[in-house]
Amino acid sequence: MHACQEQFVPRVVVDVMLKPEILDPQGQAVAAALPRLGVTGVTSVRIGRRVELEFADPPDPEQLTELADQLLANPVIEDYSITVPEPVPEDGP
Amino acid sequence: MHACQEQFVPRVVVDVMLKPEILDPQGQAVAAALPRLGVTGVTSVRIGRRVELEFADPPDPEQLTELADQLLANPVIEDYSITVPEPVPEDGP
Repeated sequence: MHACQEQFVPRVVVDVMLKPEILDPQGQAVAAALPRLGVTGVTSVRIGRRVELEFADPPDPEQLTELADQLLANPVIEDYSITVPEPVPEDGP
Repeated sequence: MHACQEQFVPRVVVDVMLKPEILDPQGQAVAAALPRLGVTGVTSVRIGRRVELEFADPPDPEQLTELADQLLANPVIEDYSITVPEPVPEDGP
Protein backbone atom coordinates (compact mmCIF):
# COMPACT_ATOMS: atom_id res chain seq x y z
CA MET A 1 0.00 0.00 0.00
CA HIS A 2 1.33 3.37 -0.95
CA ALA A 3 -0.36 6.60 0.12
CA CYS A 4 -0.79 9.16 -2.65
CA GLN A 5 0.50 11.94 -0.48
CA GLU A 6 3.39 10.96 1.78
CA GLN A 7 3.47 12.55 5.22
CA PHE A 8 6.11 15.28 4.96
CA VAL A 9 8.07 16.00 8.14
CA PRO A 10 9.11 19.65 7.92
CA ARG A 11 12.79 19.80 8.69
CA VAL A 12 14.74 23.00 9.19
CA VAL A 13 18.52 23.40 9.43
CA VAL A 14 20.00 26.40 11.22
CA ASP A 15 23.72 26.91 10.63
CA VAL A 16 25.35 29.13 13.24
CA MET A 17 28.87 30.43 12.55
CA LEU A 18 31.03 32.97 14.36
CA LYS A 19 31.12 36.29 12.52
CA PRO A 20 34.23 36.55 10.28
CA GLU A 21 35.81 39.21 12.50
CA ILE A 22 35.52 37.05 15.64
CA LEU A 23 38.53 34.87 16.49
CA ASP A 24 37.81 31.13 16.28
CA PRO A 25 40.33 29.30 18.52
CA GLN A 26 38.67 25.93 17.88
CA GLY A 27 39.12 26.36 14.14
CA GLN A 28 42.69 27.52 14.63
CA ALA A 29 43.45 24.42 16.70
CA VAL A 30 42.16 22.21 13.89
CA ALA A 31 44.11 24.21 11.30
CA ALA A 32 47.28 23.75 13.37
CA ALA A 33 46.70 19.99 13.59
CA LEU A 34 46.23 19.52 9.84
CA PRO A 35 49.92 19.38 8.83
CA ARG A 36 50.40 16.53 11.32
CA LEU A 37 47.86 14.56 9.27
CA GLY A 38 49.72 15.43 6.09
CA VAL A 39 47.04 17.87 4.92
CA THR A 40 48.53 21.05 3.53
CA GLY A 41 47.05 23.95 1.63
CA VAL A 42 44.26 24.72 4.09
CA THR A 43 44.02 28.49 4.44
CA SER A 44 41.16 28.75 6.92
CA VAL A 45 39.12 26.57 9.27
CA ARG A 46 35.99 27.89 10.99
CA ILE A 47 33.87 25.74 13.27
CA GLY A 48 30.23 26.47 14.01
CA ARG A 49 27.04 24.70 14.97
CA ARG A 50 24.49 22.91 12.84
CA VAL A 51 21.06 22.63 14.41
CA GLU A 52 18.52 20.27 12.84
CA LEU A 53 14.92 20.86 13.91
CA GLU A 54 11.97 18.69 13.01
CA PHE A 55 8.46 20.12 13.18
CA ALA A 56 5.08 18.47 13.40
CA ASP A 57 3.63 21.18 11.14
CA PRO A 58 5.29 23.55 8.66
CA PRO A 59 6.85 26.27 10.83
CA ASP A 60 6.21 29.99 10.59
CA PRO A 61 9.33 31.69 9.05
CA GLU A 62 9.00 34.64 11.43
CA GLN A 63 8.95 32.30 14.42
CA LEU A 64 12.04 30.54 13.06
CA THR A 65 13.95 33.81 12.89
CA GLU A 66 12.95 34.67 16.46
CA LEU A 67 14.00 31.20 17.59
CA ALA A 68 17.42 31.48 15.92
CA ASP A 69 17.94 35.00 17.28
CA GLN A 70 16.96 34.25 20.85
CA LEU A 71 17.92 30.65 21.48
CA LEU A 72 20.20 29.14 18.84
CA ALA A 73 22.62 31.98 18.06
CA ASN A 74 24.17 34.91 19.84
CA PRO A 75 23.63 37.68 17.28
CA VAL A 76 26.40 39.77 18.85
CA ILE A 77 29.14 37.37 17.76
CA GLU A 78 27.39 34.87 15.49
CA ASP A 79 25.70 34.80 12.10
CA TYR A 80 23.10 32.22 11.24
CA SER A 81 21.41 30.94 8.15
CA ILE A 82 18.11 29.09 8.07
CA THR A 83 17.68 26.40 5.43
CA VAL A 84 14.48 24.52 4.74
CA PRO A 85 15.56 21.50 2.67
CA GLU A 86 13.18 20.78 -0.17
CA PRO A 87 11.29 17.54 0.22
CA VAL A 88 12.28 15.01 -2.42
CA PRO A 89 9.25 14.57 -4.68
CA GLU A 90 8.22 10.97 -5.25
CA ASP A 91 6.66 11.11 -8.67
CA GLY A 92 7.64 7.65 -9.80
CA PRO A 93 5.24 5.62 -11.95
CA MET B 1 41.04 46.06 -13.58
CA HIS B 2 39.13 42.82 -13.74
CA ALA B 3 40.85 39.49 -14.34
CA CYS B 4 39.19 37.26 -16.90
CA GLN B 5 39.32 34.27 -14.62
CA GLU B 6 38.58 35.04 -11.00
CA GLN B 7 40.67 33.18 -8.45
CA PHE B 8 38.37 30.49 -7.06
CA VAL B 9 38.92 29.65 -3.39
CA PRO B 10 37.91 26.01 -2.96
CA ARG B 11 35.65 25.82 0.06
CA VAL B 12 34.52 22.61 1.71
CA VAL B 13 31.86 22.20 4.38
CA VAL B 14 31.92 19.19 6.69
CA ASP B 15 28.74 18.68 8.71
CA VAL B 16 29.24 16.44 11.73
CA MET B 17 26.15 15.14 13.54
CA LEU B 18 25.72 12.60 16.31
CA LYS B 19 24.44 9.27 14.99
CA PRO B 20 20.64 9.02 15.35
CA GLU B 21 20.91 6.36 18.05
CA ILE B 22 23.19 8.51 20.25
CA LEU B 23 21.52 10.68 22.89
CA ASP B 24 21.93 14.42 22.26
CA PRO B 25 21.52 16.25 25.61
CA GLN B 26 22.33 19.64 24.06
CA GLY B 27 19.53 19.21 21.54
CA GLN B 28 17.18 18.02 24.28
CA ALA B 29 17.97 21.13 26.34
CA VAL B 30 17.08 23.33 23.38
CA ALA B 31 13.91 21.33 22.73
CA ALA B 32 12.90 21.79 26.37
CA ALA B 33 13.49 25.55 26.16
CA LEU B 34 11.36 26.04 23.05
CA PRO B 35 7.93 26.17 24.72
CA ARG B 36 9.19 29.03 26.92
CA LEU B 37 9.76 31.00 23.71
CA GLY B 38 6.26 30.14 22.56
CA VAL B 39 7.49 27.72 19.91
CA THR B 40 5.46 24.53 19.84
CA GLY B 41 5.30 21.66 17.40
CA VAL B 42 9.02 20.86 17.40
CA THR B 43 9.41 17.09 17.50
CA SER B 44 13.20 16.82 17.47
CA VAL B 45 16.30 18.99 17.89
CA ARG B 46 19.78 17.67 17.09
CA ILE B 47 22.88 19.81 17.40
CA GLY B 48 26.09 19.09 15.55
CA ARG B 49 29.12 20.86 14.17
CA ARG B 50 29.62 22.66 10.90
CA VAL B 51 33.25 22.95 9.79
CA GLU B 52 34.11 25.31 6.94
CA LEU B 53 37.52 24.73 5.36
CA GLU B 54 39.15 26.90 2.73
CA PHE B 55 41.89 25.50 0.55
CA ALA B 56 44.56 27.15 -1.53
CA ASP B 57 44.17 24.43 -4.18
CA PRO B 58 41.27 22.08 -4.95
CA PRO B 59 41.53 19.34 -2.30
CA ASP B 60 41.82 15.62 -2.92
CA PRO B 61 38.48 13.93 -2.02
CA GLU B 62 40.31 10.97 -0.47
CA GLN B 63 42.32 13.29 1.74
CA LEU B 64 39.12 15.06 2.79
CA THR B 65 37.56 11.78 3.90
CA GLU B 66 40.65 10.91 5.92
CA LEU B 67 40.62 14.38 7.46
CA ALA B 68 36.96 14.10 8.48
CA ASP B 69 37.48 10.58 9.82
CA GLN B 70 40.56 11.32 11.87
CA LEU B 71 40.26 14.91 12.99
CA LEU B 72 36.81 16.41 12.52
CA ALA B 73 34.48 13.58 13.51
CA ASN B 74 34.48 10.66 15.88
CA PRO B 75 33.19 7.88 13.60
CA VAL B 76 32.14 5.78 16.60
CA ILE B 77 29.38 8.18 17.59
CA GLU B 78 29.19 10.70 14.75
CA ASP B 79 28.21 10.78 11.09
CA TYR B 80 29.61 13.37 8.74
CA SER B 81 28.81 14.66 5.30
CA ILE B 82 31.25 16.51 3.06
CA THR B 83 29.83 19.22 0.82
CA VAL B 84 31.77 21.12 -1.81
CA PRO B 85 29.61 24.14 -2.64
CA GLU B 86 29.51 24.86 -6.36
CA PRO B 87 31.22 28.10 -7.32
CA VAL B 88 28.74 30.63 -8.69
CA PRO B 89 29.52 30.99 -12.40
CA GLU B 90 30.01 34.54 -13.55
CA ASP B 91 28.89 34.38 -17.16
CA GLY B 92 27.32 37.80 -17.36
CA PRO B 93 27.61 39.81 -20.57
